[in-house]
Amino acid sequence: MTTEKVRLIPLGGLGEVGKNMMVVEYGDDIIIIDSGVMFPDDEMFGVDLVIPDTSYLADKKDRIRGILITHGHEDHVGGLPYILPMLDFPPVYATRLTHGLISVKLKEHRLLDKAVINVVSPEDHVELGRCTAEFFRVNHSIPDAVGIVIRTPLGVVIHTGDYKFDYTPIDGKPADLGMLGRLGNEGVLVMMGDSTRVESPGYTPSERVINDSLDKIFANAPGRVIVATFASLISRVQQVIDTAVRYDRRVALVGRSMQNNVQMAIELGYLDVPPSTLIRPEDINKFDPEQIVVICTGSQGEPTSALTRIANKDHRLVRIQPGDTVILSATPVPGNEKMVHRTINNLFRLGAEVYYQGLSHVHVSGHGAQEELKLMLSLLRPRYFVPIHGEYRQLILHAKLAHSLGIPDDNIMVAEDGDIIEISSEGIKHTGHTATGNVYVDGLSVGDVGQIVLRDRKVLSQDGILMAVLTVDKETGQPIAGPDIVSRGFVYMRDAEELLESARERVLESFVDLNGHGSDWSFVKDKIKDTLSEFLYERTRRRPMILPVVMEV
Amino acid sequence: MTTEKVRLIPLGGLGEVGKNMMVVEYGDDIIIIDSGVMFPDDEMFGVDLVIPDTSYLADKKDRIRGILITHGHEDHVGGLPYILPMLDFPPVYATRLTHGLISVKLKEHRLLDKAVINVVSPEDHVELGRCTAEFFRVNHSIPDAVGIVIRTPLGVVIHTGDYKFDYTPIDGKPADLGMLGRLGNEGVLVMMGDSTRVESPGYTPSERVINDSLDKIFANAPGRVIVATFASLISRVQQVIDTAVRYDRRVALVGRSMQNNVQMAIELGYLDVPPSTLIRPEDINKFDPEQIVVICTGSQGEPTSALTRIANKDHRLVRIQPGDTVILSATPVPGNEKMVHRTINNLFRLGAEVYYQGLSHVHVSGHGAQEELKLMLSLLRPRYFVPIHGEYRQLILHAKLAHSLGIPDDNIMVAEDGDIIEISSEGIKHTGHTATGNVYVDGLSVGDVGQIVLRDRKVLSQDGILMAVLTVDKETGQPIAGPDIVSRGFVYMRDAEELLESARERVLESFVDLNGHGSDWSFVKDKIKDTLSEFLYERTRRRPMILPVVMEV
Repeated sequence: MTTEKVRLIPLGGLGEVGKNMMVVEYGDDIIIIDSGVMFPDDEMFGVDLVIPDTSYLADKKDRIRGILITHGHEDHVGGLPYILPMLDFPPVYATRLTHGLISVKLKEHRLLDKAVINVVSPEDHVELGRCTAEFFRVNHSIPDAVGIVIRTPLGVVIHTGDYKFDYTPIDGKPADLGMLGRLGNEGVLVMMGDSTRVESPGYTPSERVINDSLDKIFANAPGRVIVATFASLISRVQQVIDTAVRYDRRVALVGRSMQNNVQMAIELGYLDVPPSTLIRPEDINKFDPEQIVVICTGSQGEPTSALTRIANKDHRLVRIQPGDTVILSATPVPGNEKMVHRTINNLFRLGAEVYYQGLSHVHVSGHGAQEELKLMLSLLRPRYFVPIHGEYRQLILHAKLAHSLGIPDDNIMVAEDGDIIEISSEGIKHTGHTATGNVYVDGLSVGDVGQIVLRDRKVLSQDGILMAVLTVDKETGQPIAGPDIVSRGFVYMRDAEELLESARERVLESFVDLNGHGSDWSFVKDKIKDTLSEFLYERTRRRPMILPVVMEV
Repeated sequence: MTTEKVRLIPLGGLGEVGKNMMVVEYGDDIIIIDSGVMFPDDEMFGVDLVIPDTSYLADKKDRIRGILITHGHEDHVGGLPYILPMLDFPPVYATRLTHGLISVKLKEHRLLDKAVINVVSPEDHVELGRCTAEFFRVNHSIPDAVGIVIRTPLGVVIHTGDYKFDYTPIDGKPADLGMLGRLGNEGVLVMMGDSTRVESPGYTPSERVINDSLDKIFANAPGRVIVATFASLISRVQQVIDTAVRYDRRVALVGRSMQNNVQMAIELGYLDVPPSTLIRPEDINKFDPEQIVVICTGSQGEPTSALTRIANKDHRLVRIQPGDTVILSATPVPGNEKMVHRTINNLFRLGAEVYYQGLSHVHVSGHGAQEELKLMLSLLRPRYFVPIHGEYRQLILHAKLAHSLGIPDDNIMVAEDGDIIEISSEGIKHTGHTATGNVYVDGLSVGDVGQIVLRDRKVLSQDGILMAVLTVDKETGQPIAGPDIVSRGFVYMRDAEELLESARERVLESFVDLNGHGSDWSFVKDKIKDTLSEFLYERTRRRPMILPVVMEV
């Protein structure tokens, strides 16, 4: 039975954090799990978003049976508006709230008509070629998160999605331990497990512990309470609303994504808000400060978010006043620390009392810590294990954790994006590698910004640019106008006249000794470039990009 | 006695982390404490270093009695090579190891002949005009760190420097509690206290706790042990050497600053190394792996450091081999997390076992936590308190901490760089503000890179640049050559021919309807700029810098 193979091809999220996307193949059937984006890091100058490279799928579109979505976070659904058209709109399967969030996103991209999005619930079975998919409830920092079961003729394939175990979640729906136990008894061929928090020992505390902190802060707040959190963290919004009701306060939602998400969560029944609790942000000042709670976006210090504007005295409706208490109910995503700290500093400067993670217990993670990862592995007892969702060190540590629970090293596969993993009756092995990497979204275009453009942006960002422009006579090959020297981001031109004048002279000297290369303009340009580069480095120890332009008349 | 005033003018380190510099004035006498640098953040494109703005001192050079240095870290001494010449080389006072580190630095800048650096010890009294300075030993992550006492006729001024209390330090020299107690009994007018770790409850553990972790890791290491730490963290180097000796291993030092610092520490008697323990890095392979320890730089993932090169398979002498154990004995400085994680990922990829803070207890901070800050305040019992060394939120939290110990709010001054603080018999008050901010060192020049250059670098980094160059006839005002369109960092030019061709046409169209502005080139250039800007944004949703160049012949 050499054809009996399951292949796993991670296109994103393995060896990195973000743009999660996993391809599962059995025979002719291809099933995709998640299509996320990654936010650009400091080296990806000017890039808006990063999506997975899906060129592996380009010639296999007709074999794609569906895209299964674990939950509605950007790193799992944000790639859909770009990837669905590339793949000729295969059907998408998602739980109810996730479906809502995807629909909003596709509508913004004017793709809602073309896309096929099916709502699924944990009881459903979805036929996908010769495979069937099921879903099991997990806890995460957004409602309606699920893990995925794919039944293939070779055995059961499980993808945990992002998860933690919360025995007392705010929405009353703990992870489905019963189904996980049943799957483990049935026998699991391979489990792909979230590695995000493998470096943390113990358990991630229940969302419920936040209640105590909120209670204490609300009890002592002399004026308004302003809470910033993730717009998708509906359970936190519920906790703040519950606390507000207990303390007889009204709630205003500030920030577009907070308003949209809460609206949708109420409509779909994921949020329980007593009547007349919500007020319009415009009406905040009609109430006494001690009657007000503001829930807003900006917990990551994002430049245009509500909280950042408030901290910068730049918000249309909310200005910090004496007695205000601000809670940042989130931890900074790695890379956002400086922006978050800037926001906190500014809020303190305006006289607010500020509570944030580290000082107070105002946030818990949405990912399971070591003991929870062990619980998942122990419930499912998979034959093969593939750690997913994490940088390389996290995948390795998750592999060691699995090994410590008795899974043999030969049955554990640490893989990265693009690796082709094959599982057969003979074991699990790495059989090849496919195209992989970052596809950049910049403005309207997807994929046209590559390494050359990014490298230029980097050089430009370091020492700027200097252009030498001149017009030469076609006949004599000698300059008749210019050189004009123009620079940006190199020196402050008004203070550097002598330097730029000397540069001009160097350019003219380049024309003296051309050794018969008189009208070989690429030779002349190279010579100008070298001369200027050397001269400017010697004088300034900087290396601006140098761009000679020669025009013939 | 209206002339009896002490003035404190922080020029760096208050409201930010880094470039610490404090001016203390009594009458005509000016005393400076520290002259540090700050490393540029992501927004300071291409900048090498940041130093304090010392323009406040420009017309007061003759009143400067000396610069007192608390310890040899870059954020306290790194500004000296730039600031000493600006201030006509006032005398510098530093403890022995700090003196050694400053000397190396000034030698590199060829300033050693001109500078006057005096070695002081905690027993010394230094006359500085009508004031006297003394020094008290504190614990910090570098040997020979001191706090500073300035006796003015109005009272005792204390600057803690960076500190923690370690009762069992590796070098056997705990902070001088006796002297602090005596100063408290005597009466302290004002204390300026380090706020770096005010957000952490409890005590910072003793350096000694690291011994257990090192012991455990060495006991289980099957091959070489490679330890990366700060080159100035001499006590950590001592601990690694002691552990190496216990496990019968030789030690090789890798990385220039590690070699230089250890060399100096040995010569000055700050490190105790048994004979024949050290070997040359070139000789590593002459020993069995289990006989080797490498101590190297690169714990912050700095691109050109030893550990980063090792992790990138790019080091001349050290290559990771199976069985290697790597310890990162440091925590990432905020902003360095990504680089450190990249290094750890790469080391795991090469098959090393990697231990780092969070997973193992391999580092402790050099700054005191809340209980230590309380201890310092309780020993000194100052009348006035000024929190220093920290971002605004940290200064505020330190002020609250001091208040909780009974210092009245009116006696606590939260100030930021450039604030002028005056202390007299009437109290402490804020009397003004002086020039302050960042002075950028970029290449050879200090201070010429300002906001305009940085703003241009930022724009260039986002969407690149597009130039439109053309030659026009002086008489007719019409183009006779060009427009040539050249772009960098905007689009990949080879793929964007149609776009650039359209841009060229737009430029030519700008010449059609000039309404008599035919030879008003700044009008023409503005028109080209606006036309192109609008066209390119519409087509690409990007906003490259646009630079029209018009040459007349």
